[in-house]
Amino acid sequence: MPRTLYHLPLSAASRKFRVVLAEKGLPFELKVEKTWERRPEFVVMNPACEVPVLVEEDGTAVADTLALTEYLEETYPERRLWPEDPKARLEARRLNAWFDVKFDREVGRMVGEEKLLRRYLGIGTPNSEAIRQGLTSLRQHLAYVDWLADQRKWLAGDELTMADIAAATQISVIDYLGDVPWDGFPDAKAWYAKVKSRPSFRPVLSDYVPGLPPPRHYANPDF
Amino acid sequence: MPRTLYHLPLSAASRKFRVVLAEKGLPFELKVEKTWERRPEFVVMNPACEVPVLVEEDGTAVADTLALTEYLEETYPERRLWPEDPKARLEARRLNAWFDVKFDREVGRMVGEEKLLRRYLGIGTPNSEAIRQGLTSLRQHLAYVDWLADQRKWLAGDELTMADIAAATQISVIDYLGDVPWDGFPDAKAWYAKVKSRPSFRPVLSDYVPGLPPPRHYANPDF
Repeated sequence: MPRTLYHLPLSAASRKFRVVLAEKGLPFELKVEKTWERRPEFVVMNPACEVPVLVEEDGTAVADTLALTEYLEETYPERRLWPEDPKARLEARRLNAWFDVKFDREVGRMVGEEKLLRRYLGIGTPNSEAIRQGLTSLRQHLAYVDWLADQRKWLAGDELTMADIAAATQISVIDYLGDVPWDGFPDAKAWYAKVKSRPSFRPVLSDYVPGLPPPRHYANPDF
Repeated sequence: MPRTLYHLPLSAASRKFRVVLAEKGLPFELKVEKTWERRPEFVVMNPACEVPVLVEEDGTAVADTLALTEYLEETYPERRLWPEDPKARLEARRLNAWFDVKFDREVGRMVGEEKLLRRYLGIGTPNSEAIRQGLTSLRQHLAYVDWLADQRKWLAGDELTMADIAAATQISVIDYLGDVPWDGFPDAKAWYAKVKSRPSFRPVLSDYVPGLPPPRHYANPDF
């Protein structure tokens, strides 16, 4: 079986690994996994029943964003996305977790999940207080990205790392929903344009969720 | 300056690294960091302004639970807490993230933070709906630990790993509050007793927060 990534189009973590696999030059197939259906074979692969899950050609299933991050770096080190220098690696890991965990909790689940899962799947109505809180946190996160992007070439230093991919894919989901106030954050915007222009990011920008079109600037690297 | 861990007594992540450092035989000093005071020197070390932060003798500051986990394994590999075998390491990383991220989000922040930060610091009243949800999630997590502990010697396989330490320290905070329904989960209880009996875990069990005494069984390995 070819290498397969089980994903959802607007899952930030799924997007992260589509970009990571492309950066590493590893071919893979995408399969949509409707996690809310709790398919038994999928729950066996990932008891948390979340996407993404990567299944390798030999059947090895790798679940969890952080485990998958380290697994891919250890298994395919030719194109590194952690810096070689220990201090730089520390900074890249800190910022990668910032977006995988903190941004995800404070913005992704508050805005993205509320709007998407609830509206798209029709599970209740979106919690407008959660969305409001998430959008307030989003401004704080963007201010931080703006500051980092002003100080450094990439978020964690001189090289593109996992941290840039984690941050850009988290932000891309909110941007799909039209909720990123780019105008107040010029350095963040310039950094995001740079990530968007990479070939590895194109497939993510061509996602289209039926009934939920993205704003016009979404797929444009020069926005 | 000696190696220093900035912590809070009932922060699960701080507890995790007290145990990890002890398992690795690395001496360190503990300093309480009142994160809510946002001490400027501390915010520079960790812009997320969360404990734990480890400061090494040479001044290197390491923030974020997951970055710190990988840093300690890379820097002090003599006593490994990730298994050597790649598949076993995958499973240990998956479960470690389960407790560092998922349990923390679904139980720790819902029960521990609501009860502690709000009551102890007097910031508003605890959100009883969050606590109720957290305690419901706790039962699901305990059922999973119970199942794992029934199948395996340690949570991720034959060896004690980061995953056991992450799980036991998360649970220890809820146990301090007297909220763990041990009776329904005998295998989880036997596994937790085994972790509790390790010398590395003792200091965590002797924590005492003024005005908030733990239940009598809390520090007893044979509970």
